[in-house]
Amino acid sequence: MVLSDIEIANAVPMEKIDRVAQRLGVDKNALSLYGSYKAKIDAGQLEKLKDQTDGKLILVTAISPTPAGEGKTTTSVGLVDALAAIGKKAVIALREPSLGPVFGIKGGAAGGGHAQVVPMEDINLHFTGDFHAIGVANNLLAALIDNHIHHGNALGIDARRITWKRVVDMNDRQLRHIVDGLQGKVNGVPREDGFDITVASEVMAILCLSENMTDLKNRLNQIIIGYNYAGQPVTAQDLKAGGAMAAVLKDAIHPNLVQTLEHTPALIHGGPFANIAHGCNSVLATKLALKYADYAVTEAGFGADLGAEKFIDIKCRMSGLRPAAVVLVATIRALKMHGGVAKSDLAAENVQAVADGLPNLDKHLENIQDVYGLPAVVAINKFPLDTEAELQAVYDACQKRGVDVVISDVWAKGGEGGRELAEKVVQLAEEDNHFQFVYNEEDSIEEKLRKIATKVYGAKGISLTPAAKKELKELEELGFTQYPICMAKTQYSFSDDPKKLGAPKDFTIKISKLKVSAGAGFIVALTGAIMTMPGLPKVPASEKIDIDQDGQITGLF
Amino acid sequence: MVLSDIEIANAVPMEKIDRVAQRLGVDKNALSLYGSYKAKIDAGQLEKLKDQTDGKLILVTAISPTPAGEGKTTTSVGLVDALAAIGKKAVIALREPSLGPVFGIKGGAAGGGHAQVVPMEDINLHFTGDFHAIGVANNLLAALIDNHIHHGNALGIDARRITWKRVVDMNDRQLRHIVDGLQGKVNGVPREDGFDITVASEVMAILCLSENMTDLKNRLNQIIIGYNYAGQPVTAQDLKAGGAMAAVLKDAIHPNLVQTLEHTPALIHGGPFANIAHGCNSVLATKLALKYADYAVTEAGFGADLGAEKFIDIKCRMSGLRPAAVVLVATIRALKMHGGVAKSDLAAENVQAVADGLPNLDKHLENIQDVYGLPAVVAINKFPLDTEAELQAVYDACQKRGVDVVISDVWAKGGEGGRELAEKVVQLAEEDNHFQFVYNEEDSIEEKLRKIATKVYGAKGISLTPAAKKELKELEELGFTQYPICMAKTQYSFSDDPKKLGAPKDFTIKISKLKVSAGAGFIVALTGAIMTMPGLPKVPASEKIDIDQDGQITGLF
Repeated sequence: MVLSDIEIANAVPMEKIDRVAQRLGVDKNALSLYGSYKAKIDAGQLEKLKDQTDGKLILVTAISPTPAGEGKTTTSVGLVDALAAIGKKAVIALREPSLGPVFGIKGGAAGGGHAQVVPMEDINLHFTGDFHAIGVANNLLAALIDNHIHHGNALGIDARRITWKRVVDMNDRQLRHIVDGLQGKVNGVPREDGFDITVASEVMAILCLSENMTDLKNRLNQIIIGYNYAGQPVTAQDLKAGGAMAAVLKDAIHPNLVQTLEHTPALIHGGPFANIAHGCNSVLATKLALKYADYAVTEAGFGADLGAEKFIDIKCRMSGLRPAAVVLVATIRALKMHGGVAKSDLAAENVQAVADGLPNLDKHLENIQDVYGLPAVVAINKFPLDTEAELQAVYDACQKRGVDVVISDVWAKGGEGGRELAEKVVQLAEEDNHFQFVYNEEDSIEEKLRKIATKVYGAKGISLTPAAKKELKELEELGFTQYPICMAKTQYSFSDDPKKLGAPKDFTIKISKLKVSAGAGFIVALTGAIMTMPGLPKVPASEKIDIDQDGQITGLF
Repeated sequence: MVLSDIEIANAVPMEKIDRVAQRLGVDKNALSLYGSYKAKIDAGQLEKLKDQTDGKLILVTAISPTPAGEGKTTTSVGLVDALAAIGKKAVIALREPSLGPVFGIKGGAAGGGHAQVVPMEDINLHFTGDFHAIGVANNLLAALIDNHIHHGNALGIDARRITWKRVVDMNDRQLRHIVDGLQGKVNGVPREDGFDITVASEVMAILCLSENMTDLKNRLNQIIIGYNYAGQPVTAQDLKAGGAMAAVLKDAIHPNLVQTLEHTPALIHGGPFANIAHGCNSVLATKLALKYADYAVTEAGFGADLGAEKFIDIKCRMSGLRPAAVVLVATIRALKMHGGVAKSDLAAENVQAVADGLPNLDKHLENIQDVYGLPAVVAINKFPLDTEAELQAVYDACQKRGVDVVISDVWAKGGEGGRELAEKVVQLAEEDNHFQFVYNEEDSIEEKLRKIATKVYGAKGISLTPAAKKELKELEELGFTQYPICMAKTQYSFSDDPKKLGAPKDFTIKISKLKVSAGAGFIVALTGAIMTMPGLPKVPASEKIDIDQDGQITGLF
């Protein structure tokens, strides 16, 4: 019988979180408990510990995702447990999960099997309320916009050009496109509008990129909510919103401390979308992790073309963070899908399909080594039906690049299943590191887009729609040229066509829209339609979730 | 210089909440800390303490509210501090404030001056996340409804008759009336819809009336979300929603412990609207308060005609709670407004206006004594410009009823300013108590409505619109006759006309709509339009709220 994640999690007694914090060396006065197994660490500790040497930052990323799954978070959690098991002081920094997938298809997002962060039902369901605070800050700004228009619109906001949306932390397609302000003068001003899921809010991206409360407030005030009738941007500051928005985030700014099933400390903080935002946990959590540990493991959303690129070009660029080594996670199943096998046929051995899928892995490795300039190891997240011959194909391909391949069995065995990976990571982190950005700050917006597309995606070039060209010109005129780029592209392919698996060639990246997230500090480049409000499936995962009279939750995966 | 509430609050060092809990006698293992000054007490303690004798329940209510303000919460907080000051073991049970008024007009809602619950910025801004969880549970159900219709509508839900709305904890008039599900087949099913503020959600009322997790889940499943094409009710259970909704509320069900400025324990839990819901803190918090203390002070929303009536006929009826004494709060300023004085003219002495306003106070006293059968004291919440002659008019009027009048000066002096009130309350709670409901469970719906209108409001009778008559018949056919009534009436008048101040005569209560809150367990009777989504004023209070680099908040009142 296979146990569910929550059953495995519930079978392991947790350590009291103040003990976990003590082992980590967190000043008792900097710890705010949220029950016995969750806490917040005062972000101000970063300033207090500024003279302390940083540990080494290990980035976990993956091949292009497929419906077969890669297990990036599971591998990350297993790796940090393995690092602890081989005697290293290690901490993991992860994103907080959204409620959307918890109620939708995917279930929870706190690792899996014996490589989980706990208490998983708290982390998945409510945690310390950060997403709530982010939603409130976002929706306060939205209410202030419409209230301003309702009361006479002194700023001359063009209701047709409001870009700021309201959010809920829910998969709710019904709210994607709405008309609000209906039914007469006392009930607002009718306009087209819509909701995003909370993780897609720019407030989320801002929280995750802020260095401290002052930085956070400044960024919030810089948010562009839309344009006035003269075509000039209107900011949150114009609406006197930044102070109250920051006040709402007074607790959310502090990183959350929990633990893995093996009691390794885990900082879980922030969770921006990986398409219209940068897809990494907060800078504050990563920096704190580096202060407290010799090895800080973190991950970035989607594959290495999207998540790792943004991790480097946005998060590292803004914060000064520098990874020491990269783990590229793959599964034999996913490689077979990249090689053209349907999900229903994954059980059968198919060495040729693995070989046909390997160019995807190879291109990601090339990016990590040659484009980002970082040492890499491939972690094969083991599944029961993987065969020796299939694995050999991966070994052979990676040998050509001089990259080691390690089997990770952390889902089944926890940290014990990741020892070899941990040893390899420790060794890699000592290697030469030629870290570099994909583009320079001074490059033009178009040059930045071209460098990402050609160097990272392997495209021939880029093309911009007439609308995107107009937007590019506007952004340049508004002075946003120096901002980094946040690519909103399908995660399933290097190209902008989700059906082109493997490592496609001879394609062009078509930019359909450019918009600035002025508070977060990046320009979002959209390639086709990007979903910022998911929907629920016909049978939502919520139907299986239950709680008994003692508060015990079942049905969370 | 007059200090703001947050300045007064910040000047007083708080006691660590685990110490407060220890003094209260809370089992250490039943306490979940949320930082150093907030905690949750496991609701399961109620079962563990079931053989312990209950303390006495003191209900604080008020005359019909006016724009001059009454200070009910301030008086409640001062009273509990005064009870502690005279050596009684006392606890206060209050509602959690909504973010709506915090950002809107009113500012915070945690008492005022030297009679506050703290940490006020936490209580007002985010607290322990209960309202978030309630919003998520509410919005999960909403998403499941539209998702069900989107995927084929097997239940045959009539989209024109969906009564379940989404919520945000925000004053946002723009969301009152919307059309959602726009832009084609993949984006939902177009229909008329709207948002309420979170405190107006039936989930809030349910949380506040539930005795335990099983009761909570059963009530959630009983929610009627609308009707199918055959006219039959569709419930949350039909959508398999109750389990996940209850799971989301796993922490929210447990009462929150904080303290007053004088370190008296305060249980702050739940905050349902006082018009379409019953307007009291949770049954669990009140019951826990009675287990831990000899005197539990609590309050009910709006004036004694609305709040106290619902407290008695809904909360006490369902839970078995019985008040020992009632404090009726009034101000000279408010009495003058009931006597016809404009807000701008309140500064001048006007004994005649006080006398003209006294019938409002007198009718409330009559209700408390003769209709509810409870001993009462009048607390005059002191303002600097009140004159001896004005106060004398109140003394004289109350003497006729044999009711004492006590000056409460807790805003300026804290518990010390409420000693006389506390002594009186202790004495009253020993008096004979002829507690009774306004109507019987077996009365017909119409009879219940009539009894409330004639006995409590002093109306000649009731009239129902044709629509309400039809709804009444439907509710009877569906078997809801035995449910208590939740009157949604203006709080400003005994009548259904907010302009009729004082104690109007010769009026009829016009019922325009009847709807059942099947999970909460009451029938809501609406008299005219009731606002369930407030709007922001031209200059929202949020504009003044700010936070500095150390996380210190300013501008909260």
